[in-house]
Amino acid sequence: MSIVDRLAAARGDTPADLVLRNGQLVNVISGEIYPTDIVIHDRHVVGLGAGYAGQREVDLAGKYVAPGLIDAHAHIESSLVTPPEFARAVLPHGVTTVITDPHEIANVLGLEGMRFMLERAKNVPLNMYVMASSCVPATDMETTGARLEAEDLAPLVDHPWVLGLAELMNYPGVALGDEGMLDKIALFEHRVLDGHAPDMSGKMLSAYVTAGVQSEHECTTLAEAREKLRLGLTVFIREGTTTRNLKPLLPLITAENHSAICFCTDDRIPADLIDHGSIDYMLRIAIAEGVDPMIAIRMGSYNTARHFGLKKYGAVAPGKYADLLVLPDLRDFRPEQVYRGGELVAQNGAMVGERGVSRRIDLRSTVNIGAGKLDFSIKAKGERIRVIGTIPDQVVTDQRVEWAKIVDGFALSDIERDILKFAMVERHRASGNIGLGFIKGFGLRRGAIAGTVAHDHHNLAVIGVDDVSMRRAVAAIVEMGGGLALADGEAVLARLPLPVAGLMSELPIEAVRDQYDEMIAAARKLGNQMSDPYIVMSFMGLEVIPKLKLTDLGLVDVEQFKLVDLFV
Amino acid sequence: MSIVDRLAAARGDTPADLVLRNGQLVNVISGEIYPTDIVIHDRHVVGLGAGYAGQREVDLAGKYVAPGLIDAHAHIESSLVTPPEFARAVLPHGVTTVITDPHEIANVLGLEGMRFMLERAKNVPLNMYVMASSCVPATDMETTGARLEAEDLAPLVDHPWVLGLAELMNYPGVALGDEGMLDKIALFEHRVLDGHAPDMSGKMLSAYVTAGVQSEHECTTLAEAREKLRLGLTVFIREGTTTRNLKPLLPLITAENHSAICFCTDDRIPADLIDHGSIDYMLRIAIAEGVDPMIAIRMGSYNTARHFGLKKYGAVAPGKYADLLVLPDLRDFRPEQVYRGGELVAQNGAMVGERGVSRRIDLRSTVNIGAGKLDFSIKAKGERIRVIGTIPDQVVTDQRVEWAKIVDGFALSDIERDILKFAMVERHRASGNIGLGFIKGFGLRRGAIAGTVAHDHHNLAVIGVDDVSMRRAVAAIVEMGGGLALADGEAVLARLPLPVAGLMSELPIEAVRDQYDEMIAAARKLGNQMSDPYIVMSFMGLEVIPKLKLTDLGLVDVEQFKLVDLFV
Repeated sequence: MSIVDRLAAARGDTPADLVLRNGQLVNVISGEIYPTDIVIHDRHVVGLGAGYAGQREVDLAGKYVAPGLIDAHAHIESSLVTPPEFARAVLPHGVTTVITDPHEIANVLGLEGMRFMLERAKNVPLNMYVMASSCVPATDMETTGARLEAEDLAPLVDHPWVLGLAELMNYPGVALGDEGMLDKIALFEHRVLDGHAPDMSGKMLSAYVTAGVQSEHECTTLAEAREKLRLGLTVFIREGTTTRNLKPLLPLITAENHSAICFCTDDRIPADLIDHGSIDYMLRIAIAEGVDPMIAIRMGSYNTARHFGLKKYGAVAPGKYADLLVLPDLRDFRPEQVYRGGELVAQNGAMVGERGVSRRIDLRSTVNIGAGKLDFSIKAKGERIRVIGTIPDQVVTDQRVEWAKIVDGFALSDIERDILKFAMVERHRASGNIGLGFIKGFGLRRGAIAGTVAHDHHNLAVIGVDDVSMRRAVAAIVEMGGGLALADGEAVLARLPLPVAGLMSELPIEAVRDQYDEMIAAARKLGNQMSDPYIVMSFMGLEVIPKLKLTDLGLVDVEQFKLVDLFV
Repeated sequence: MSIVDRLAAARGDTPADLVLRNGQLVNVISGEIYPTDIVIHDRHVVGLGAGYAGQREVDLAGKYVAPGLIDAHAHIESSLVTPPEFARAVLPHGVTTVITDPHEIANVLGLEGMRFMLERAKNVPLNMYVMASSCVPATDMETTGARLEAEDLAPLVDHPWVLGLAELMNYPGVALGDEGMLDKIALFEHRVLDGHAPDMSGKMLSAYVTAGVQSEHECTTLAEAREKLRLGLTVFIREGTTTRNLKPLLPLITAENHSAICFCTDDRIPADLIDHGSIDYMLRIAIAEGVDPMIAIRMGSYNTARHFGLKKYGAVAPGKYADLLVLPDLRDFRPEQVYRGGELVAQNGAMVGERGVSRRIDLRSTVNIGAGKLDFSIKAKGERIRVIGTIPDQVVTDQRVEWAKIVDGFALSDIERDILKFAMVERHRASGNIGLGFIKGFGLRRGAIAGTVAHDHHNLAVIGVDDVSMRRAVAAIVEMGGGLALADGEAVLARLPLPVAGLMSELPIEAVRDQYDEMIAAARKLGNQMSDPYIVMSFMGLEVIPKLKLTDLGLVDVEQFKLVDLFV
């Protein structure tokens, strides 16, 4: 099949593969909803209107037809599964295209990791496009498994699945003219450049935008989003598992400005994807809160396609891929059928057809720690310590100063004041680096939790009441080659293997979700009250989000952008 | 100066080149108008907001600041001058960027002609982008000076000033899957593809769009424009000298669909550009007719930049070129100042600064006719003839059948019934081809008019009462190496030399306009009542616009898409 066949079907000279009759088309280009037949041939829409015959014809009985949804920015790794299973989670929700930044695996495995994601996306009925990870590592205050400079990214500039440069998280570096950042920006000058600049404003923000950045998904307040939109950034409103920005930002959206607004998920865990959905969830909330369905659908499809220059996506029109949704109700936006490239891939919330078989790819081991030698003891060098203060439902933290609990010259966890020991163990190069600190908010009264998911360096994070539990949890993860573990003394009470780079499982997403639920339940038994302590822990090492964070090199004061001592 | 300097100015660390204070910014991205300072450094906007210092500061005293206008589709050759003079005509009207299709000169001189236009656009304070001419020749029913196949266009695909493939005028060919057209489309698959499909609708139109075409500027009726917009074509509303589509199409524009609508001029003669303007004229009309100024401005700037992927154009925001207009009044849209790349280039309707000196470029002679041998006699082969019927203010024609005036066995012009002889003389290859026919509507009672501007093959068109006048007018054009001429018997009464490809003069546009006015006045004296007989004549050979046209190979029935006999 080729363009010649599509033209013949478009002219009506040969029957089309499929004609969807009696649908109400949500035409996001003209802004109208009206009845029409939709004609599909060789993966594409080839016609709209009456008088076509199809080899197959489906009567939609007046149901709505909308374009497949597009997630403007997502880290698939956060779903804890690889692209084929991620696709099975989001396709039944109507997401047919996702713009990904594989910077989690890139921090662990570099280009090899990005190539793994591209390989795993082949033959998957989800369109996965990639933004080349721009900040690996995020800063020099951490140790990662890989380092990507401009020359490393050069082969990606013209890759057919690469659209541009991913979130420029080193936002002070960009605004200050850091040479490495400018080299990467110059390399992708003619492509799309994504931003990440939480709380940035005024002149520094103007400098950041002047550098060529085109989007921002870190807005949390209306004032912040308004300023960024006015400066020309396309605002990706984000609704992740921990970063829930949709409701606060809904008042931003107007008929006049919405073409510069898109929707994205950034990071969502398996249970969220399965139970609540993805971009479809955002559409339901937005529409329920009063956003016009046409505007909401555009933000979830057409606007994103235009922003990224994806000419064949985002609308149901001739020449575009037949990625479309059949919906009984536009307000309760739940796709009854999901077509991708003209094939029915999901129906009534479930995938159609069997799982494909993924080709085996041998990735190298990514957990390189001498487990026997781990020493988490903290010699008291003072009486008062900096403590990371978690804030419910946020990835930013407080920086607190507390009295240390000192016994025999060593600082220990203090369960009465909920100040627990926190260690970040370098796991890529067996360097022996361990960052040590204390954290407040996890509430464990016994044991320890640990994991190799720790944005974005993905060293091994462990929080515990005692060093024995902490070491045991780490050892369990080493045995699994990466993952999450919970230990109480020498007993490992729960574990979730994530053998792909210590970030992902290749098991079905439903199985991963069950194991993950068990991990959360086990933590709850030890005293943690968070809805998900593992995802909170995973952001406690991300030194590009304020205020106090811990890397394998030590505590980072993000606002000062430097390493600081534990003891004040 | 580099990005490093721009970032320093954006941060406020160094003073900016220029700060425009107290302006009312028309922010086409956020859809708001609000007071702000605009900070310009090294050709770019680098900041919006207070607190910046500039080496120069200008108080705008509350005037509006809007982005420089963008013409979505223009043939500069139709201004009868080369890019430097075209720029001097449109810049004072606020047009800072023009997307051109140089297919007039390309039909005469091929790639050499396109390179001439690119060369002439250098160092001109107008941003000129090029769409690679897709239909040279338009069809096989004409003789042109050059022929551009896909392999000829290949070097243009990645040219920094080339945005895509120009209007695909062979619309039946595209829809029917003509191999040469599909080769060109495949070549520019990842770039922008402009359309041209007058009156096309239904399945054939679906096929045309399915082929990858993205825009259309030939809509003349509301119903036509609505159908094309719904099928996903960006509608360029056109207001040319002869093709005045703006008012009929204004009802198309809504708040919901306007992001898929742009403005263009296509072909405008010098007097129109000088007296009435360009895209600014369209904005004034649209706003006067009730279109919201924000929407009108977007259609004249932002929407066009987005359609063509011109990231650094179409809005006043950091990182974009400082192409902007200062306006005392948004409704009577007349720019008081025009900045291009941060430089003041026009003020109060006139250019600032002297004309630049254009480098001499030796183009080959393009009028190759053995003038002595011209024979316009038409032996009567029947009694009734096909006659081209002009229609006021249209480039389409009627196909009429009339009794021939036959004297001594030859068909002659009949001034009583206004049926005049019309010849199309091949002028590129001295082939001796002469297409002969008759045309109604020019009203000459004596003499002949002739010109080497004859879309798109640009052979030498001549319409006259007698063969002597016709031969003399042609001879005058041969002497000039191209241009327009009017003769009465052996006397040449008016002439306009167009030595550049027989299409353009390198004189100042004001001088060309004066000569052109004299040409029109001279025709009026001979009986022509049209506002501009030369531009009407120039479209009478364009065999891709219905119904009956004349090329050097003979009469073309456009709807049948074939050559037909003069005698019925």
